[in-house]
Amino acid sequence: MRTEGKHIIMDASGCNPELLNDLDYLRSLLVEAAKKANATVLNVAFHHFTPQGVSGVVVISESHLSIHTWPEYGYAALDFYTCGDIDPKIACEYVAEHLNAKYVQTTEVFRGEEHEGKYLHKVRSVKTKVYGKELSLLP
Amino acid sequence: MRTEGKHIIMDASGCNPELLNDLDYLRSLLVEAAKKANATVLNVAFHHFTPQGVSGVVVISESHLSIHTWPEYGYAALDFYTCGDIDPKIACEYVAEHLNAKYVQTTEVFRGEEHEGKYLHKVRSVKTKVYGKELSLLP
Repeated sequence: MRTEGKHIIMDASGCNPELLNDLDYLRSLLVEAAKKANATVLNVAFHHFTPQGVSGVVVISESHLSIHTWPEYGYAALDFYTCGDIDPKIACEYVAEHLNAKYVQTTEVFRGEEHEGKYLHKVRSVKTKVYGKELSLLP
Repeated sequence: MRTEGKHIIMDASGCNPELLNDLDYLRSLLVEAAKKANATVLNVAFHHFTPQGVSGVVVISESHLSIHTWPEYGYAALDFYTCGDIDPKIACEYVAEHLNAKYVQTTEVFRGEEHEGKYLHKVRSVKTKVYGKELSLLP
């Protein structure tokens, strides 16, 4: 397996609070997002918090997807990390859309690039999507 | 639960290949690292690849820790994401030490900061540790 990977950090705001508190919905959503990106799902681990909120991870053969939600704030923190030819952007957009997110900020990190025997990462871009308008922000 | 969190992206090179291929060792290591940082472990999901390599995630009540390993390159890609008063650096250092890592690059991302109803993240620092010497790199 190649070491190079793409890792997208995504913070989604203005999401539907009911969806953010629904463990079954979120587990299905992340598994479906992985499949949309042609990733192979190996394992899932989800937890519902009292009184609200969900944390969950989908381990894929190309790395992982994770979600942590705060329904009371309409906020979800997500990570999409994929290796090989899998493109995590497809999974990101699918999840943002199905959480009814109004604001989406993403940062792309390239990981596992070899430099003289060291494997390093590099922050490549920070983007914010607000109601479909896209603008670049400095890291 | 507060939305603010610290997320450390860590790429570790020059690690002991045997340790990177030992699922039981890595699972215990990440669980122990979570405990060292005073996090509460909720769920674990690990997978061993053929012929080699391990992917695993520890869901904690304060977010998650993850690891993906390439024993053939002595490389491990890790994430330590914690909310509340938990400091992920303690877990990072514990894991790097117990993988016998020679080179460690970390990037710290502050997540879930509220700005006018939006929850955003910010890349704060990129650091590389080489044999104990610490130097700053531009993102």
